[in-house]
Amino acid sequence: MTYCVGIEVDEGLVFAADTRTNASLDDVRVHRKLHEFEFPGQAVFVLMAAGNLATTQLLVSRLRRDAEEQRPESLVGYRYLFEVAEYVGRVLVDSQVKSNTPEHGHDGVNTQATLILGGQVGNERPGLYMIYPLGNAIAASPETPFLQIGESKYGKPILDRIIRSHTRLDDAARTAVVSLDSTVRSNLSVGLPFDLVLLRAGDLHITQRMRLAADSPLYADIHGNWSRRLEQAVAALPRFPWESGDHDQRS
Amino acid sequence: MTYCVGIEVDEGLVFAADTRTNASLDDVRVHRKLHEFEFPGQAVFVLMAAGNLATTQLLVSRLRRDAEEQRPESLVGYRYLFEVAEYVGRVLVDSQVKSNTPEHGHDGVNTQATLILGGQVGNERPGLYMIYPLGNAIAASPETPFLQIGESKYGKPILDRIIRSHTRLDDAARTAVVSLDSTVRSNLSVGLPFDLVLLRAGDLHITQRMRLAADSPLYADIHGNWSRRLEQAVAALPRFPWESGDHDQRS
Repeated sequence: MTYCVGIEVDEGLVFAADTRTNASLDDVRVHRKLHEFEFPGQAVFVLMAAGNLATTQLLVSRLRRDAEEQRPESLVGYRYLFEVAEYVGRVLVDSQVKSNTPEHGHDGVNTQATLILGGQVGNERPGLYMIYPLGNAIAASPETPFLQIGESKYGKPILDRIIRSHTRLDDAARTAVVSLDSTVRSNLSVGLPFDLVLLRAGDLHITQRMRLAADSPLYADIHGNWSRRLEQAVAALPRFPWESGDHDQRS
Repeated sequence: MTYCVGIEVDEGLVFAADTRTNASLDDVRVHRKLHEFEFPGQAVFVLMAAGNLATTQLLVSRLRRDAEEQRPESLVGYRYLFEVAEYVGRVLVDSQVKSNTPEHGHDGVNTQATLILGGQVGNERPGLYMIYPLGNAIAASPETPFLQIGESKYGKPILDRIIRSHTRLDDAARTAVVSLDSTVRSNLSVGLPFDLVLLRAGDLHITQRMRLAADSPLYADIHGNWSRRLEQAVAALPRFPWESGDHDQRS
């Protein structure tokens, strides 16, 4: 499976993705699910994908080719991000094998993929879209400042509680790492290393990129620090009525 | 839907359940999903149920009748908790309507239910079981000190991080409330009020019971306190390498 989260705050965009893919429990590999497309001074995009790996690899190859050959339809051919999302949606639909049904002699393997696309075109404000297998898309908004694909449930509560439009970009990135870390603990099919990318509004290039592996000191630091602080937070929660007078006994 | 969690720590057992049931999004009601069975000085049980409401109500009615009439098979007829779990499993299987298939002229409504049963029989250690629709059961253990039924994913990370066998009973209860609160925020089909029950090992009766409603001051206090502390915890996480020298700028 997969877990990817994209966050849109006033300062810019955060993208975080795990790297584990599995055909089954005994066929687990590491594949990059976060892809960068930089056109310095012009536009910058980050694409994250959940779903069929053949589909998403074909999609990314086609997007790169279209841009490199400066085809009429390409990542650099549009003035608005929503148009880029429409274009990527069309390429996604074309990249999903359709003849995967029993009538075609196949076993109905799911070739669909779902995407998160974010970035900035020229002077437009940065934006964040979720693109569905049908090619249509929805945008993040101040009320819904993050989008998730894949195994999204375990990592959602922390995002719900923390992420607001005014959250600082680096704090949003830290929250994304915690959200991924929570998911890794609970679902075997989501795994380290994590890819993390920050796009500061107006930069028109990747502001920061980082890969967090299980043995990287920063990851261990975040992981341990978070667990400790959660324990403290639980211990400091309000007492139940029957605990009155019990305070002195607590260490 | 439903979300219930049972926790087994050295000091005893915690049970927490929401109370929302829905036939569809426009047919939402409040029903108790946590049921107490006290036989003071002899045994005490708590049962939580997720799944078909008709099934679980029939099950609970039958369990109460069997105990009241002192039938050969009843909650007070066994020396070991695993035998009680077997008995409850049999009653569960009998309470699930089987003629719900198209062949019987029905539309295949799911009449299954899944249970969490915990309690203590005489001097035996308290125990906690998950009982499946087939009537078979698994027990909690020091390595897996909590069991969840229903919409379990949103509330799992906090339990994974906090609950250990040595966790204090009241802290386990606070964690359960946070786990439910996280789920309510993310899934409309899980709702307040919450039922919370504590069984201290050896008590052989309900040690504490509490209903937490949206407007109860303790709930508001836990909810607000938790959100605040999570924000502080995120803000206090280790900095990224590119933030060095940035410390002074933070409020």
